[in-house]
Amino acid sequence: MTNPTAAMIVIGDEILSGRTRDSNMHYLAQELTKIGINLCEARFIADDPAAITATVKQLSASYGTVFTSGGIGPTHDDITADSVAAAFDTPIGVREDAYQLLRAHYDRQGAEFNAARQRMARIPDGAALIDNPVSIAPGFRIANVNVMAGVPAVFEAMVASVLPTLTGGAPLLSQSLRIQRGEGEIAGPLATLAAQFPDLSIGSYPFQKNGIYGANIVIRGQDGAQVDEAMAQLAGLFPA
Amino acid sequence: MTNPTAAMIVIGDEILSGRTRDSNMHYLAQELTKIGINLCEARFIADDPAAITATVKQLSASYGTVFTSGGIGPTHDDITADSVAAAFDTPIGVREDAYQLLRAHYDRQGAEFNAARQRMARIPDGAALIDNPVSIAPGFRIANVNVMAGVPAVFEAMVASVLPTLTGGAPLLSQSLRIQRGEGEIAGPLATLAAQFPDLSIGSYPFQKNGIYGANIVIRGQDGAQVDEAMAQLAGLFPA
Repeated sequence: MTNPTAAMIVIGDEILSGRTRDSNMHYLAQELTKIGINLCEARFIADDPAAITATVKQLSASYGTVFTSGGIGPTHDDITADSVAAAFDTPIGVREDAYQLLRAHYDRQGAEFNAARQRMARIPDGAALIDNPVSIAPGFRIANVNVMAGVPAVFEAMVASVLPTLTGGAPLLSQSLRIQRGEGEIAGPLATLAAQFPDLSIGSYPFQKNGIYGANIVIRGQDGAQVDEAMAQLAGLFPA
Repeated sequence: MTNPTAAMIVIGDEILSGRTRDSNMHYLAQELTKIGINLCEARFIADDPAAITATVKQLSASYGTVFTSGGIGPTHDDITADSVAAAFDTPIGVREDAYQLLRAHYDRQGAEFNAARQRMARIPDGAALIDNPVSIAPGFRIANVNVMAGVPAVFEAMVASVLPTLTGGAPLLSQSLRIQRGEGEIAGPLATLAAQFPDLSIGSYPFQKNGIYGANIVIRGQDGAQVDEAMAQLAGLFPA
């Protein structure tokens, strides 16, 4: 696969403790697949500056684009911006354009633009802001790392701001067939089919629910004719 | 925190492509928290032998216990067992006790115990089997790595088999308060409170839904009296 690559870093003790169930990774995965960017890895890490800095460094060097989610609000546990700045050895401070955006927002609301809120204008030097139409406080992009909020509505709005700036790849075409037989019966013929189509990815995803079991077979590839041909052979092997 | 540590590896292209939404990590996170084991990191990786082997090596060396999910079925894309064996430089082959378990199961069903199904009896040398009361095909534990199925019902049953064998820690006590004010208003007093209780973790998790916004403040720690005291002070700072 020669498509562009990406990785995601989900930051937050609340997810690793099981208090909150993350939805941002699944959302981003779907959006990237639509535009032919290959999400190769996702890491869920704690609210720990050293872990954030090390993970950002490592994934930024390994993949085309990196996305982070979480830890950019006004409270004491929001440490992502500083940790990302450290990953790039870059100073961080209150930035004028972000400051003005936030000041205007709180003025409109008649709310105090206090020290905590001003913290959200702290952006690493050299970063570009990511628009946040939901709650104004911006994300930012530094090098190939997009730093975004954890609240799903805000994360999703930021993803919508970022995706048009990325170069996608050939969209991965995919077809699937639901087969109500045990994977053990399907496996032999399926392996033979997979060997015949080395450019395709053929996955088998078993299910069992209410006593019914079987597998969804998913055929993915960039060549639509090949996907069609493999799917036709599969349907011939396992008629409904 | 001196509690035992753990990490999880979720294996599967179907999750990174957004086709399937993982639920195993959230489930495991909750179960580990209950018994005082600290889930420090979770990695979602592709169906790629080199990635699985490298990730198992790294996390096995870094954390007390590792859990993997996915890729131990009978089909050609089930490559986890071989990749884990490679991580420990251990041979892998069909193991007699696993073979007999599976043969008896398919005999009872009147189903053929074919080559694909026999593949599920391939276990790295030196591993212990993990019981699978749902669909029989066992997981296994090698060194500190527990290798389990991806299908949630099976994963959850295997977790139930494994947890009693682990040494837990002091359960993390947690209390939370829902505050209907912007995080920016809460942040200052909250930071002061957090500084007063260095042994506690105080997290702020903002929400916004149907025009109502605020934050859930979660106070966690192992000393119940401290958690109570911090929560009382918090409630005093932000009366309902």
